[in-house]
Amino acid sequence: MSQKHDVVLIGAGRMGQIHGPNAARHPDLRLRYVVETDPALGAKLAAELGAEIATLSDALADPAVKGAIVASSTDMHLEHSVTCIKAGKAVFCEKPIDLDLAKARAAAKLFDGAPFVLGFNRRFDPHVNALKEKIASGVIGKLETLTLINHDPASPPPAFIPRSGGLFKDFTIHDLDLANSLLGEPPTEIFATASCLVDPEIARLGDVDTARVILRTASGKLCVISNTRRSGYGYDQRVEAYGSKGMAMSANERVDQVQVWGEAGASASPIRPNFLNRYAASYKREIDHFADVVTGRAKSQVGFAEGLAALAWAEACAESARTNAVVKL
Amino acid sequence: MSQKHDVVLIGAGRMGQIHGPNAARHPDLRLRYVVETDPALGAKLAAELGAEIATLSDALADPAVKGAIVASSTDMHLEHSVTCIKAGKAVFCEKPIDLDLAKARAAAKLFDGAPFVLGFNRRFDPHVNALKEKIASGVIGKLETLTLINHDPASPPPAFIPRSGGLFKDFTIHDLDLANSLLGEPPTEIFATASCLVDPEIARLGDVDTARVILRTASGKLCVISNTRRSGYGYDQRVEAYGSKGMAMSANERVDQVQVWGEAGASASPIRPNFLNRYAASYKREIDHFADVVTGRAKSQVGFAEGLAALAWAEACAESARTNAVVKL
Amino acid sequence: MSQKHDVVLIGAGRMGQIHGPNAARHPDLRLRYVVETDPALGAKLAAELGAEIATLSDALADPAVKGAIVASSTDMHLEHSVTCIKAGKAVFCEKPIDLDLAKARAAAKLFDGAPFVLGFNRRFDPHVNALKEKIASGVIGKLETLTLINHDPASPPPAFIPRSGGLFKDFTIHDLDLANSLLGEPPTEIFATASCLVDPEIARLGDVDTARVILRTASGKLCVISNTRRSGYGYDQRVEAYGSKGMAMSANERVDQVQVWGEAGASASPIRPNFLNRYAASYKREIDHFADVVTGRAKSQVGFAEGLAALAWAEACAESARTNAVVKL
Amino acid sequence: MSQKHDVVLIGAGRMGQIHGPNAARHPDLRLRYVVETDPALGAKLAAELGAEIATLSDALADPAVKGAIVASSTDMHLEHSVTCIKAGKAVFCEKPIDLDLAKARAAAKLFDGAPFVLGFNRRFDPHVNALKEKIASGVIGKLETLTLINHDPASPPPAFIPRSGGLFKDFTIHDLDLANSLLGEPPTEIFATASCLVDPEIARLGDVDTARVILRTASGKLCVISNTRRSGYGYDQRVEAYGSKGMAMSANERVDQVQVWGEAGASASPIRPNFLNRYAASYKREIDHFADVVTGRAKSQVGFAEGLAALAWAEACAESARTNAVVKL
Repeated sequence: MSQKHDVVLIGAGRMGQIHGPNAARHPDLRLRYVVETDPALGAKLAAELGAEIATLSDALADPAVKGAIVASSTDMHLEHSVTCIKAGKAVFCEKPIDLDLAKARAAAKLFDGAPFVLGFNRRFDPHVNALKEKIASGVIGKLETLTLINHDPASPPPAFIPRSGGLFKDFTIHDLDLANSLLGEPPTEIFATASCLVDPEIARLGDVDTARVILRTASGKLCVISNTRRSGYGYDQRVEAYGSKGMAMSANERVDQVQVWGEAGASASPIRPNFLNRYAASYKREIDHFADVVTGRAKSQVGFAEGLAALAWAEACAESARTNAVVKL
Repeated sequence: MSQKHDVVLIGAGRMGQIHGPNAARHPDLRLRYVVETDPALGAKLAAELGAEIATLSDALADPAVKGAIVASSTDMHLEHSVTCIKAGKAVFCEKPIDLDLAKARAAAKLFDGAPFVLGFNRRFDPHVNALKEKIASGVIGKLETLTLINHDPASPPPAFIPRSGGLFKDFTIHDLDLANSLLGEPPTEIFATASCLVDPEIARLGDVDTARVILRTASGKLCVISNTRRSGYGYDQRVEAYGSKGMAMSANERVDQVQVWGEAGASASPIRPNFLNRYAASYKREIDHFADVVTGRAKSQVGFAEGLAALAWAEACAESARTNAVVKL
Repeated sequence: MSQKHDVVLIGAGRMGQIHGPNAARHPDLRLRYVVETDPALGAKLAAELGAEIATLSDALADPAVKGAIVASSTDMHLEHSVTCIKAGKAVFCEKPIDLDLAKARAAAKLFDGAPFVLGFNRRFDPHVNALKEKIASGVIGKLETLTLINHDPASPPPAFIPRSGGLFKDFTIHDLDLANSLLGEPPTEIFATASCLVDPEIARLGDVDTARVILRTASGKLCVISNTRRSGYGYDQRVEAYGSKGMAMSANERVDQVQVWGEAGASASPIRPNFLNRYAASYKREIDHFADVVTGRAKSQVGFAEGLAALAWAEACAESARTNAVVKL
Repeated sequence: MSQKHDVVLIGAGRMGQIHGPNAARHPDLRLRYVVETDPALGAKLAAELGAEIATLSDALADPAVKGAIVASSTDMHLEHSVTCIKAGKAVFCEKPIDLDLAKARAAAKLFDGAPFVLGFNRRFDPHVNALKEKIASGVIGKLETLTLINHDPASPPPAFIPRSGGLFKDFTIHDLDLANSLLGEPPTEIFATASCLVDPEIARLGDVDTARVILRTASGKLCVISNTRRSGYGYDQRVEAYGSKGMAMSANERVDQVQVWGEAGASASPIRPNFLNRYAASYKREIDHFADVVTGRAKSQVGFAEGLAALAWAEACAESARTNAVVKL
């Protein structure tokens, strides 16, 4: 077996609890350290995964540590990534790179050519990848338009809203990156419109919960993004790609394949209820990719540039929704 | 427009009320007479369809009458068909030709080459026909096995049971003919087993309501037939054809294409509730075929021989279920 | 049987050939006259349907004529409707009422309370109606957003483009009316963006072939409309209605229920290829409704006001696409 | 964390390569030893899983070893299970318990109450379990009939046939146990008919490749089993349970949720191609259950008695197919 490469996990919260186990179980990685500001939280995850608690500087000082997984709070993503890259480590960073576009742009040069993987997990989803292969195969002809449906099952706790960056930077950003990955050319114009239909508390906090976005590219390709914070029917994650010869789509997974047929109709089991179970495979596969980067077997497929682009478009969405006008990029 | 050909409808009951309007609306046919033992029933249908009430002999004596549609009670199918064929008319006869195999066999010679269409309506169903074309196209390779699912939504009134001929002659006979039409070779062995699970009254009347039948052909092809008098979920009409390279199936129609997605799952609208709405197109198309036979444009695709064969196999099913043994044909 | 009411058909072209037979076969209507500028075309249809050729003034002068079906060329819809209403006839008029909003507005007063049915056929589609019932039942909670997918299989002949009124007035207008029918409140803002991706000849003629539209209502409901002139996969007609408790959709019909499973996957038969077969039931049902209006059994469910509204919104779409800005209504 | 319990894996072939990793990764188990007659095969798997090569007697002599996973060749299943049970170990044994019913019956007493889990993996499949819950919920009323479709994608190498025990003991046995698990009462009569349609070499070796089986219980419930060695379209694993109020089914998983819509129809990705990927979850879950038995947290849900019953019914199938008659149990 190959020698394992040591990595450090920064952050033992919700995303750390996803990435930590995936790293710990990876055949090429050893999760050596957990860095966490909440000692109890850090100690619990470290114990479960056979890792040690450490300060960030101690962890980075260990020459055996080859990589860092940044799963800290959003406002620390950039700082932690910069520190780790400067320390010569490969970095996997949870999205978004930052909420402040100017700040992120200022840091961009450091990441040029650096071993940095940004956690846009949908790029690693097996269904999305299979769809991409279909598009690439030419079976639908030339791609012309795209529809992305991204509906969360239930709105986050109000406390999350103020530090989320708003719907566009927190949530739509996934779709903006996915559009980038699928369309083959960047948007040149963005129009977004949004409402607060789910929870008036979200409006009171200055955010929206329901949005529709149209991206337009230089060649006239169109992409519609549909977002809501609360679907009432699970985690709706669909992609529809329309081409000159047909359409390819990625439909929802269901929790199981059971159907019940009765006089009132046929009912299928629900779609996946949330991102944890819908995207479990993609979280695992993005750490697989990170392991390839850590071990030098591959270059990062999605890095800082993609993070900057999606962030800029998310800001454009917010501006468009605020001004009720098209934003040109 | 082509000149219309006059036809007589014998029987204004349930099936006459299906075939009568289809004949009356056909561009090449004119429904001239209705023959019915119940005067009120006959008068009502005749008025609706612009036809006249007549006795059978008067109707057949009219030289303008070129065809007869036999939709009388099952015990009169054969006698009416014989009379009409002898009178030189083209005949469409509702299934089955008779409940008594010996009697039917004795009459067979008369029908040799006669313009006689038997109402095995599934042969005219658009879905079944599309399936047949797929099989013929070779896309599933060589057909090896077949599964026919024919589940009635709700059991008939007990009064119907004694004169029905029993589950196999009344109901399974459709599947036996469909197997004949699809398999390409006749069964050489039949095994049937049946239960009374739906309604004890059916057992008391000497019949069964749930059956499974296996047909075996000389070359070893196998066909399973699944029957029930009461599904609890609509009129389940599926065909699955398994070949050396894949499978082709005809799935159920639904009453509409509406789906509702909620937290408990996704529900589609019910399948067609009964034979009237599921097979409306096939009833129309079998009269279209009859019109082609009446006008001399086509030879009958399904005649007395097919009726005899299916009846013989239905009897074999009944014998197999009674003796709990394979019946060799 | 009820006494039949005489009607006149104005126009024996593509739409006249749909509405004429539906009227001729209706139990309460008699298609008495066909009015058509092309004598051969008119004579052919009249003969097929058992009607007489007449001039419009002669037909309207016949006091037995109670209704008129306007299926003339688009530029004559309004003039013919006005003439027939003034003659005291009930009118069914194919959409749109006119291509010129100012002209249509000027005529509006005449239609106030008049027996006028506008042929927005989707309102009569069984699937759309079933969807509407689901929404009304409350099963998805309060309706919040709507997605309408209306993709034509193949672009019309270039000669049609200049007199079509453009994509929005010719094609999107159906979706605008459907949104009106489903949303429960009119749009207050419209944003549309469009491209010519299908056929450069369409661009040369000053039109577009691919569009995305977002409607916004006073309460913040959002509706996305997706249009293309050429799908490459049939006539895609889907409606998705998102509410506070779930989603209801109307999916596509397929030409049959056959599936083929092979090593490369499972293939289902194509969706309906064009409007004629997809909406056959709705064309029949709108004439059923017109018969109810002619006979005085019902008031029109969709009249001049709905036609004006949809036309105004189609103009707003065109203006939005041209100015690349939101149009406030 | 709980202390790990040591287990030994007997057999490093196809099934050992499935069960070994599942045991090695289980949080409560440590895969301590691998026992294998082929030294290279054993050494490779042991190295991958961090285990040691050992003889069976040495492994069983280690008091830390609490359980044994029997994945040896079929003819050794019973002997290895007996040895391990006698050594006081909990045993997980791959199906079938043996090919010789008399020999298995003779050994049955030893297994009475013993911690023995038989690897009927379908009992642990999430879809089957969800289906079972639906049936238990009463949503389909009282279960009346059952259809089990178990179609292998491609026939095994001819060399496997002579030592397989034949189609019924090797393949149908899964369905017989699943019927046992779902029907709630054992079959009292079995009819089986089989053909060799896939590969004449299979017939030359005295076996069949295509079978249909009907089970009948004392209360008249009916179960149809459909088997083939080669489907041509993947690993078809469906269960349909028909009750007095409706039907519940477990449909096939697909490799992904991608669909492509074109003019020829809509194609979905293939169903799972073979047992390894279709039943990966069930293999993991049966080892989870075995861990519960090893640690004393649970009693075995499927033991020697179930293995004996299924083996007896498989023999009855073979006898029925040979004699072409119903076998009463």
